[in-house]
Amino acid sequence: MPQAPAAINLADKLAQFSDLWSQKKVADLNDYEVKLAKLKGEFVWHTHEDTDELFLVISGRLTLQLRGGDVVLGPGELFVVPRGVEHCPVADEETAVLLLEPAGTLNTGDAGGSRTKAPEVLD
Amino acid sequence: MPQAPAAINLADKLAQFSDLWSQKKVADLNDYEVKLAKLKGEFVWHTHEDTDELFLVISGRLTLQLRGGDVVLGPGELFVVPRGVEHCPVADEETAVLLLEPAGTLNTGDAGGSRTKAPEVLD
Repeated sequence: MPQAPAAINLADKLAQFSDLWSQKKVADLNDYEVKLAKLKGEFVWHTHEDTDELFLVISGRLTLQLRGGDVVLGPGELFVVPRGVEHCPVADEETAVLLLEPAGTLNTGDAGGSRTKAPEVLD
Repeated sequence: MPQAPAAINLADKLAQFSDLWSQKKVADLNDYEVKLAKLKGEFVWHTHEDTDELFLVISGRLTLQLRGGDVVLGPGELFVVPRGVEHCPVADEETAVLLLEPAGTLNTGDAGGSRTKAPEVLD
């Protein structure tokens, strides 16, 4: 029997994982992916040359370091990093975010390196 | 002087308007728009033939009526209505939602009619 359509509860999805800096896809929107991630500490400076990237903080506190100044996001706050703008996320406390960007966007953008990781699909 | 980049606080944005069923754009993501709306009562049945549509409930309670069954969303819950799927939003209490879909997507989809309204830009 096909599954009845159901709401995606972000808190329930966040309870399904604990690893940091690992994006989990929860939905598709056309050729975009809706992803969740838990962040703590500093990531790497990188740029997405081909796409904007949306961050929405669900809990905690995220600083998006930009070369032109920091953007600090608390719960219920979002920011779109424009394509081509170098950024480096950092979170002093564990922070849960919703990310939205085209499928295939690499988490480390142009920087590559050991922290590059494809998103996992969260059931 | 150029404006420093700043977080978009959804609660602050929601406090800027009170009209129902009127989408307010708060950010662009490539050729997509991030919009807020306040809903109460029943909308019209309609379909977006060319795009999926994301609903994320911020406060209140939204029922997305689909021909195959209802999807009920509370705060922190999202649902993507697939392209081509007829739907009709209804909210018994005033409900605040975040919407995400390509720019130019009509609120009434293929149905048209008097409730068709282009999004306004919220500063």
